[in-house]
Amino acid sequence: MLEQIAAKSVRTIIGLMSGTSLDGVDAAVVRISGNGCDNTIEPCGFITIPYEAAFREQLKGLCGPGGADAAGICSMNFRLGRMFAEAAAAVAAQSGILLQEVDIISSHGQTIWHQPSLKGCDIPYAEASTLQIGDLSVIAQLTGVVTIGDYRPSDMAAGGQGAPLTPYADHQLFGHPDRGRIVQNIGGIGNCTVLPRSAALEQVTAFDTGPGNMIIDQAVVTLSGGTKEYDHNGEWADTGCVDHDMLGRLLSHPYFKQAPVKTTGREMFGAAYTRSWIAEGEQQGLSPADLVATFTAFTACSIVRSYEDFIFPVHDIKDIIISGGGSKNPVLMRRLAELLPWQTVTASDALGISGDAKEAIAFAMLADNFVRRKPSNLPAVTGADRPVVMGKLALP
Amino acid sequence: MLEQIAAKSVRTIIGLMSGTSLDGVDAAVVRISGNGCDNTIEPCGFITIPYEAAFREQLKGLCGPGGADAAGICSMNFRLGRMFAEAAAAVAAQSGILLQEVDIISSHGQTIWHQPSLKGCDIPYAEASTLQIGDLSVIAQLTGVVTIGDYRPSDMAAGGQGAPLTPYADHQLFGHPDRGRIVQNIGGIGNCTVLPRSAALEQVTAFDTGPGNMIIDQAVVTLSGGTKEYDHNGEWADTGCVDHDMLGRLLSHPYFKQAPVKTTGREMFGAAYTRSWIAEGEQQGLSPADLVATFTAFTACSIVRSYEDFIFPVHDIKDIIISGGGSKNPVLMRRLAELLPWQTVTASDALGISGDAKEAIAFAMLADNFVRRKPSNLPAVTGADRPVVMGKLALP
Repeated sequence: MLEQIAAKSVRTIIGLMSGTSLDGVDAAVVRISGNGCDNTIEPCGFITIPYEAAFREQLKGLCGPGGADAAGICSMNFRLGRMFAEAAAAVAAQSGILLQEVDIISSHGQTIWHQPSLKGCDIPYAEASTLQIGDLSVIAQLTGVVTIGDYRPSDMAAGGQGAPLTPYADHQLFGHPDRGRIVQNIGGIGNCTVLPRSAALEQVTAFDTGPGNMIIDQAVVTLSGGTKEYDHNGEWADTGCVDHDMLGRLLSHPYFKQAPVKTTGREMFGAAYTRSWIAEGEQQGLSPADLVATFTAFTACSIVRSYEDFIFPVHDIKDIIISGGGSKNPVLMRRLAELLPWQTVTASDALGISGDAKEAIAFAMLADNFVRRKPSNLPAVTGADRPVVMGKLALP
Repeated sequence: MLEQIAAKSVRTIIGLMSGTSLDGVDAAVVRISGNGCDNTIEPCGFITIPYEAAFREQLKGLCGPGGADAAGICSMNFRLGRMFAEAAAAVAAQSGILLQEVDIISSHGQTIWHQPSLKGCDIPYAEASTLQIGDLSVIAQLTGVVTIGDYRPSDMAAGGQGAPLTPYADHQLFGHPDRGRIVQNIGGIGNCTVLPRSAALEQVTAFDTGPGNMIIDQAVVTLSGGTKEYDHNGEWADTGCVDHDMLGRLLSHPYFKQAPVKTTGREMFGAAYTRSWIAEGEQQGLSPADLVATFTAFTACSIVRSYEDFIFPVHDIKDIIISGGGSKNPVLMRRLAELLPWQTVTASDALGISGDAKEAIAFAMLADNFVRRKPSNLPAVTGADRPVVMGKLALP
């Protein structure tokens, strides 16, 4: 049956993503045409179904150390499978298609643990490993649709970090014959995919640029006493003044000098880091708005400096394509544009791919590869020994 | 690629099973020929790779309430995947075949939780669910062989109990055009598959007959002060005398009057139950050997009474085929033969299917069904709404 799907000139696929932020389930419908090598991706619908607060808390507890045992994970694996099936049905209905017309549902699953290395891991019989739940057989049985998902273990079993997995999709969606491009996601962390002009898949690289919205968000939460979660429309950053002395010192963090491939996270640029800089700024008499303006400039500068140090000397880059929450912060976008006078800086939405939906669309593309036995991991990016066909398949 | 495997006249499949007893990994090589409807199953090799004691303890802890969190299960899922891959390589080597010649590895996985109903389950967001670990992508990547497994969730997502799954294989292996048969497994619990002569798959039924070796084993452990684990060769039972009064009272347990479909377990016939009968017997002056003889007779009688009450009135049964540890207890086998004068009583080994290997062989057969999109669950047996193609597939 996989050959039959692979042979279709147009495949209708629902991609499901539930990120580590535990916000909810993203569901995208895409139509993929082409024979696998030069596909066209047509987004046809997208919804986010937010998790209810109590459910999110339950899920958050389950992901933490000591948070849930075998019984808890067993139930949640089925419960999430059911919720993913419902999200697939909902996005199909909203897009005006029947589930029977859908060729594949592709589900990333909910990551509840990810330990690409054993550094600092002291449990018995520890393994570099990753665990996504939301049972694929449950999704397949409840929807009646062939379901593919659980991609990360394949790359990790081949020696990779199991991440990042979106560079494959970035290459397909945004690669250009004449224009070198960087696809920059600004979520909590900033990460970029480098697409030299007319690059083959093997020439694609990717790395974490440093903080994304993480420091700005954390500062707004702290400085607003918890009444705000993020700098809506960049309003604070817009009214404050950047402290250039502090900006310079922020940029002296050793992470930025480290050559790619590199990854970072909350352990480096999290709450403790932000609070220490807030304390220092307040001692200097900086206002909350000045601090947020400085952190916003820091985020933009750290991204651009990564390009200047590691990408621009090697590749001629014409376009910067921004996705993630950061693309909705006009001050951050403006700073990036100012710092990149020789490039266009555009939100991915303007190119027809919603930044919110991009990950769900990316996973739909990995399922299309599975049915034609095509690898989707990039060994140069994940560290895997070899390209592998990622994922698992369940039949309805 | 699945079509290619399905089209082969002979498929070489490795079946992997790791039971709830946590003894180790059973690995069987089988060659399956036929087009799916009237297959011939040729067992070609079998090994058991026992878990080391420390590993078994770790695994046992992980299966219990509060025994392991997401991190522990994440690591163990990959560790077991690696061990299953090693078991597959070992049974292939021992059978003189190369892994490259193997078409499919089929892995049941290690059950770490199974709750077919929510009765007595008070965790938040509870679901009827089951959780087998031992990642299929890890097995596929480490062996280079297409891997299928994780069968139980499919049946449970279709409303079934996710068990028992072996009746399908019993029907294929032992069904006979002219002879009605019962396949009786005597593990901790006794369970039987009823195969009327020339029965279609839909006519197969199965249920738990009651205790298997559970009470005999528990009595030997208790009465030997922990120096023996089971009644080796039925030696104690052979030298003791059956107390017919106690036997009658044992058989008055209400479970035996209950009509199938029915299942039982350790909560009904476990240690507490056995100890209370030991105490009563000792008060009456019964020797340890008398007690073991009585419990052995009880096991045999409870099995045969199930047949007399629920099977023989409906079906003409000619053969009883015994598998599981009980088939190696000559006193138990003799008692069964005495009580069943109109039937043959034979260990499955004598019919060419090792009782030890039967489950691993059964799971190999389910993988063969997956590649031809053939359901393997029996709704009348598991309670599912419909027949479903069970399992998940990972590609190398």
